[in-house]
Amino acid sequence: MKERVVIIGGGFGGLYAAKRLKNAPVEVILIDRRNHHLFQPLLYQVATGALSAADIATPLRRLLKNQRNAHVLLGEVMDFDVTNRRVLLHDGTVSYDKLIVAAGSGKNYFGNDQWAAQAPGLKTVEDATEIRRRILTAFEAAERTTDPEKVRAWLTFVIIGGGPTGVEMAGALAEIAHETLRNAFHSINPSDTRIILVQSGDRLLPTYPPELSASAAAALERLGVEVRTSLRVTDVQERGVTVSSRDGQEYISSRTVLWTAGVQASPLGKALAEATGAAVDRSGRVIVEPDLSVPGYPDIFVIGDLAHFAHQTGEPLPGVAQVAIQQGRFVGSLIERRLTNQPVPPFRYRDRGNLATIGRGVAVADLNRVRLAGWSAWVIWLFIHLMYQMDVENRVLVFIQWFWNYVTRGRSALLITDRDQPAASSSMQPGLRLITSTGTFLRVRDPKA
Amino acid sequence: MKERVVIIGGGFGGLYAAKRLKNAPVEVILIDRRNHHLFQPLLYQVATGALSAADIATPLRRLLKNQRNAHVLLGEVMDFDVTNRRVLLHDGTVSYDKLIVAAGSGKNYFGNDQWAAQAPGLKTVEDATEIRRRILTAFEAAERTTDPEKVRAWLTFVIIGGGPTGVEMAGALAEIAHETLRNAFHSINPSDTRIILVQSGDRLLPTYPPELSASAAAALERLGVEVRTSLRVTDVQERGVTVSSRDGQEYISSRTVLWTAGVQASPLGKALAEATGAAVDRSGRVIVEPDLSVPGYPDIFVIGDLAHFAHQTGEPLPGVAQVAIQQGRFVGSLIERRLTNQPVPPFRYRDRGNLATIGRGVAVADLNRVRLAGWSAWVIWLFIHLMYQMDVENRVLVFIQWFWNYVTRGRSALLITDRDQPAASSSMQPGLRLITSTGTFLRVRDPKA
Repeated sequence: MKERVVIIGGGFGGLYAAKRLKNAPVEVILIDRRNHHLFQPLLYQVATGALSAADIATPLRRLLKNQRNAHVLLGEVMDFDVTNRRVLLHDGTVSYDKLIVAAGSGKNYFGNDQWAAQAPGLKTVEDATEIRRRILTAFEAAERTTDPEKVRAWLTFVIIGGGPTGVEMAGALAEIAHETLRNAFHSINPSDTRIILVQSGDRLLPTYPPELSASAAAALERLGVEVRTSLRVTDVQERGVTVSSRDGQEYISSRTVLWTAGVQASPLGKALAEATGAAVDRSGRVIVEPDLSVPGYPDIFVIGDLAHFAHQTGEPLPGVAQVAIQQGRFVGSLIERRLTNQPVPPFRYRDRGNLATIGRGVAVADLNRVRLAGWSAWVIWLFIHLMYQMDVENRVLVFIQWFWNYVTRGRSALLITDRDQPAASSSMQPGLRLITSTGTFLRVRDPKA
Repeated sequence: MKERVVIIGGGFGGLYAAKRLKNAPVEVILIDRRNHHLFQPLLYQVATGALSAADIATPLRRLLKNQRNAHVLLGEVMDFDVTNRRVLLHDGTVSYDKLIVAAGSGKNYFGNDQWAAQAPGLKTVEDATEIRRRILTAFEAAERTTDPEKVRAWLTFVIIGGGPTGVEMAGALAEIAHETLRNAFHSINPSDTRIILVQSGDRLLPTYPPELSASAAAALERLGVEVRTSLRVTDVQERGVTVSSRDGQEYISSRTVLWTAGVQASPLGKALAEATGAAVDRSGRVIVEPDLSVPGYPDIFVIGDLAHFAHQTGEPLPGVAQVAIQQGRFVGSLIERRLTNQPVPPFRYRDRGNLATIGRGVAVADLNRVRLAGWSAWVIWLFIHLMYQMDVENRVLVFIQWFWNYVTRGRSALLITDRDQPAASSSMQPGLRLITSTGTFLRVRDPKA
């Protein structure tokens, strides 16, 4: 009977591991809570209305349809029974011969989980739809509010976290305010929008070379983003955020706060560590061996955002797609080689560089020896993000929408949708103004007043 | 000072009225609860994963961006104060000189609103996403269920209502089961799916000529749909529906029930009728004058699904896009003509025909003198549904996805998304089976057992 490889998580790591095992004489079972693989690096474009969710999400069953030895199971893993080599789901168990845990990471509010409601993060399709709803609703609410203080709060967007996601969100928001929504409103001018990017460290994109951090900050400032470094968030409330720096505290009135500051490994990391006696780091990542296995358990592997792999540089590898992809392929290959007792060298990460886009025609690229900022980096960014799309149709759809958005300076998917309530009743303020054709404000009374 | 025309509702009627007033010396205020216009005739394609919501929804602000005299207001209308010519919103009032009420319709469960939770209807983007989630989750649940009875219930889909939406949904579901998901599962065979289309009348598409009803029924049956006419639904429960015919009662076990049977006019119809003394019909539509105005109120018009206009044939006009479009244009034109005291003939509906698609290359078309069924009707259907898209980008995106879906026999947007919870934890049943590589079932225990 064939060995069974159970993979938990259909992100980059799990999916590439499954695909690498295509021709191996094993049975692959890929378990995910979701029915789709999500191309996370473009999720901010869904949150900012440039793409639809389906453009960057592909059903796992479709991706593995032609792989005869692979099964997809929609299920939620709760715990591990390593003694009996079983994964415990919320409604059953699945036994394994080899286990690959690629459960990824979620948001980290550093002990302030109560901030989550006010400052959503960006991890899932639902997060992106919710952020898109909040951004668009803020402009609508500003349009309808009479009090200039309140208008300002609705038009102030605070993005917490100056990593790639924060930088990309800030750039996209600036484009929405200054280009996409130009002339769309009558009472407000969307270009009065304040976009504040708050970074606790002393520069944006801390994993990039300092000159690219500077290029990114300069490019964002040209787009009208206020880049605030060395600033920590100390509180998030419904109407604003409190930040503190060496100069003291400051309160920023804002109705839309987005959180891109931290990631926390999936709780399955801790569950696995408890089951195996492995150690986890501060973010909840499992500290793995040079071959990505769990110490003492050569048949259990942890890859991607959930793995703490520090054997190469002394620092753990970053939680990016290319690490997960390379680790997925490595473990797939390792499992196949072991079946025929071939030797397996330890995992070695090849950093192919880092890219972050800032806006229309502007990106920064750290390609190891070559560092680029501007148009050339942007073209490379476009090309790579198209090439890594999981299927051809998504590639075509993304390409067409990018092309369209580029030519028209528009965005394809500026929808306010919500599961339970229509957009208007969500967070509007009483008091309504309408600008009349003569240019004067018409202030109208509340019907209940 | 310019006259102010307030339009309630950004569907076909309201939008075409606003656009018709583009060059009129009036101020147009379009109020909607949603920020987008929705191309309703294609909503079933979002529900069945062929298109993304953003492909058929366009922000109202974008559609009216270049119309200088038009303002969009995101707001919920609660009532009318016709004495003072004001519309009462949930958070303010807007005064009008002319009022066009185009608030459309919702689902009608004929007094059984408790069925709504089990049998969702298809009116909004959220409805479509929810139906897509239910359809896809049903296959996933069937894949994981061991009890053959339960598998059958998960794989039985009941569509209530044999009008165009019901017919189109049934055809699309059959394609999903027999083509799109072929080979996607291991424990179940999606082509074991039962799709039951329940129609209370004696034929499908009752507003079409009988021979097209027969063609549609035959085409659906070729796709494997069970067409059940003269059958009334008497109860909808969580695990199935009870239907009754002259032969008696029958219980159909089904976990997925979709409701396309009835529409109910927006409650604003009743509110307007109470404010003006106008009459409403049984579905809540306002009975209008030959010029679409409300009796006694020549400055208030009701159009689209909310209007009961029976001056032409004695029967009220159907609630379809082309009626709303023609009425919107008519009222826009009437308002413009009245400003210069030009005469206005009464509204006259020109029925350009009806089209319903059944599946890949199959549709029925009633083009008044010409009646078509099959490929030619399908090509006309494609063409017309592309031409009526509100903007060029949507047209391109829809076209490409249709082309792709046609060539690959796939669907682009088969995502299970949900606002609050991951797909897996929604409605799975305990008990899990996995088919092993040797072809035997592996029944696994519940971890809590």
